[in-house]
Amino acid sequence: MAIVKVIELVGSSPNSFEEAVKNAVETAAKTVRNIKGVDIVGFTGKVKNGNIIEFRANVKLAFEVETVE
Amino acid sequence: MAIVKVIELVGSSPNSFEEAVKNAVETAAKTVRNIKGVDIVGFTGKVKNGNIIEFRANVKLAFEVETVE
Amino acid sequence: MAIVKVIELVGSSPNSFEEAVKNAVETAAKTVRNIKGVDIVGFTGKVKNGNIIEFRANVKLAFEVETVE
Amino acid sequence: MAIVKVIELVGSSPNSFEEAVKNAVETAAKTVRNIKGVDIVGFTGKVKNGNIIEFRANVKLAFEVETVE
Amino acid sequence: MAIVKVIELVGSSPNSFEEAVKNAVETAAKTVRNIKGVDIVGFTGKVKNGNIIEFRANVKLAFEVETVE
Amino acid sequence: MAIVKVIELVGSSPNSFEEAVKNAVETAAKTVRNIKGVDIVGFTGKVKNGNIIEFRANVKLAFEVETVE
Amino acid sequence: MAIVKVIELVGSSPNSFEEAVKNAVETAAKTVRNIKGVDIVGFTGKVKNGNIIEFRANVKLAFEVETVE
Amino acid sequence: MAIVKVIELVGSSPNSFEEAVKNAVETAAKTVRNIKGVDIVGFTGKVKNGNIIEFRANVKLAFEVETVE
Amino acid sequence: MAIVKVIELVGSSPNSFEEAVKNAVETAAKTVRNIKGVDIVGFTGKVKNGNIIEFRANVKLAFEVETVE
Amino acid sequence: MAIVKVIELVGSSPNSFEEAVKNAVETAAKTVRNIKGVDIVGFTGKVKNGNIIEFRANVKLAFEVETVE
Amino acid sequence: MAIVKVIELVGSSPNSFEEAVKNAVETAAKTVRNIKGVDIVGFTGKVKNGNIIEFRANVKLAFEVETVE
Amino acid sequence: MAIVKVIELVGSSPNSFEEAVKNAVETAAKTVRNIKGVDIVGFTGKVKNGNIIEFRANVKLAFEVETVE
Repeated sequence: MAIVKVIELVGSSPNSFEEAVKNAVETAAKTVRNIKGVDIVGFTGKVKNGNIIEFRANVKLAFEVETVE
Repeated sequence: MAIVKVIELVGSSPNSFEEAVKNAVETAAKTVRNIKGVDIVGFTGKVKNGNIIEFRANVKLAFEVETVE
Repeated sequence: MAIVKVIELVGSSPNSFEEAVKNAVETAAKTVRNIKGVDIVGFTGKVKNGNIIEFRANVKLAFEVETVE
Repeated sequence: MAIVKVIELVGSSPNSFEEAVKNAVETAAKTVRNIKGVDIVGFTGKVKNGNIIEFRANVKLAFEVETVE
Repeated sequence: MAIVKVIELVGSSPNSFEEAVKNAVETAAKTVRNIKGVDIVGFTGKVKNGNIIEFRANVKLAFEVETVE
Repeated sequence: MAIVKVIELVGSSPNSFEEAVKNAVETAAKTVRNIKGVDIVGFTGKVKNGNIIEFRANVKLAFEVETVE
Repeated sequence: MAIVKVIELVGSSPNSFEEAVKNAVETAAKTVRNIKGVDIVGFTGKVKNGNIIEFRANVKLAFEVETVE
Repeated sequence: MAIVKVIELVGSSPNSFEEAVKNAVETAAKTVRNIKGVDIVGFTGKVKNGNIIEFRANVKLAFEVETVE
Repeated sequence: MAIVKVIELVGSSPNSFEEAVKNAVETAAKTVRNIKGVDIVGFTGKVKNGNIIEFRANVKLAFEVETVE
Repeated sequence: MAIVKVIELVGSSPNSFEEAVKNAVETAAKTVRNIKGVDIVGFTGKVKNGNIIEFRANVKLAFEVETVE
Repeated sequence: MAIVKVIELVGSSPNSFEEAVKNAVETAAKTVRNIKGVDIVGFTGKVKNGNIIEFRANVKLAFEVETVE
Repeated sequence: MAIVKVIELVGSSPNSFEEAVKNAVETAAKTVRNIKGVDIVGFTGKVKNGNIIEFRANVKLAFEVETVE
């Protein structure tokens, strides 16, 4: 019986929080199959000279697995 | 005396988290009058083939009511 | 020895949550030097006639200080 | 079989937090029957010229219902 | 566009926590259409003479609505 | 060496939340010596006919003890 | 005036989470009178050879006392 | 562009929790202009001889600033 | 030196929350050795036609590892 | 059947947070038998002249009991 | 009337979490008078080559002020 | 594009909480490359005969990965 595994990632983007979320999902999807959902845990940013130079999104990804590793 | 009622909704959008919030507010505003504020409870997303196909926003809406139903 | 101080601000924007975050960071950066990071505490919005007329972001800013005031 | 429904309200008062709670309960009781309990979620206040001009109480009300609407 | 509404109920049962959850869902389903999910917020119990005489489950129900009431 | 013990009580009052806190402290003080502090965990109320007939305060009391029981 | 005391226990059972809750209530009721309610704080389990060999329930029990000990 | 700053204070009073909140707001208002809101974070009390001799309120104050210090 | 790794899974069952927990533990145990404990993070359910058709349990599993992967 | 009781203590030390935890455990162990575990709830400190003069640890102790008092 | 202000700092140390806390308190005490207490919000660390090269402590400091700035 | 993965471990030590954190980081670093940060989730301890015989630290480790497994 397949179950769902949940992992936590931090995606980042130089442009926006939403792109940071998308980058996390898309990078994971290259090697993780069957991703079903994403849950946003929090947003942070790295600031330099008064500008956010890196947008970060802590996300949890849920995906179906046949065997738990 | 009027008081404020708070309800929880989940708005969605195929495009962005922000549009999901706006959809929740605008759909509610068609039938609920006097919405004063929105509070974001959380963001989630439905993923398919490595892409977020549905952006979701759990929101709380506050609106003035004359009578509580 | 320099340490890091954390302050809480509420940025706002008529356009988007992300712009509200940026406004908080940029306004603070005019007078606060060495801002290193921003942490999003929450998003809220002011609603009028069924539209979000003010996007708000509660943020925590971390910056290095030589002396704590 | 009757079950209990829980709704969230924000009561307010120009005088005190406790009156804000009471106003929420009493206003709701005009139209909602069988309220059994109230749970205080939080207190906030609106300030003007250094005085709290509006005391607010976020409350959850529990009441028995025959049918859920 | 349909959105999702979330309501909080307290189901009860003389027999078990799980039956308390089911009672909440089934009682709501008599009048609320399109319930999609249930989220358990907490379990409590009423005790008498050293036995749990009423099992209670605080649950959140999510259901699709065409218009928000 | 004396240490501090923390216990949780629920005080009640027919009149106000503050009196509910005081009742918890004063009732405990009849048998518990050296109470140093009280921390309010939450406020709830029992409602009947649209009025709060019992104000309740969940409190934590801290007191110095020579021996832990 | 009687007040309510709240204590935390961890009940256990080789069979189920619900039995773990019941064991906590029933064991406490042998020596503690006037238990009125139980609140589930969390469920954990001890695992051996891929099976849950001990179901555990962290619970808070509320009971009326004449004197606080 | 003006933004909102949030600071945390602990107000106290020999008489009541509400007066502790008011004292925090009024003392701050002597030197801080444009306070718009107060959010109660928690209530604690100092106890001596079985009586609360100091009521304390942890509050967050929000006020508009032109420049962040 | 062996340490403990904690992973999050979502087990499911057509019958009960407890079976959902057991399924998560047993499915994981097929490939993960030395599982020592399970911690229930939350229960949710999928509802159709007024019945819970899928019981889900978010769990954290702790197991001893020689090497962290 | 023996169950586990959980109590909350605040240990203190003039030297370190870890010693504060140990003091809580060791002082309790003089009169409480069968302590199995300790869970750190939080660390605070009393400060004087710019130095921490008292390190404090809020801890929860779990111990097996035959009868609940 | 004096009230208490609470500020958040992040202290750091190359050696230990406790020293990180002390550094935050001692650095603040050079310019902030009347610090009464410290509350640990969290511990984090910066890791390089498998070693913690910077121990960090998020702390809240409480100090008495005559005027709020 | 590299992203950050976050995993949860429980380190332990017979001597101190800090050593438990270090053990978690160092054991992980033997097989996990590019660990950047550690976040302390909580401290617990195993007690025997009134002494903490095992200090435990629940930690989250963040490390850069090229591919998510």
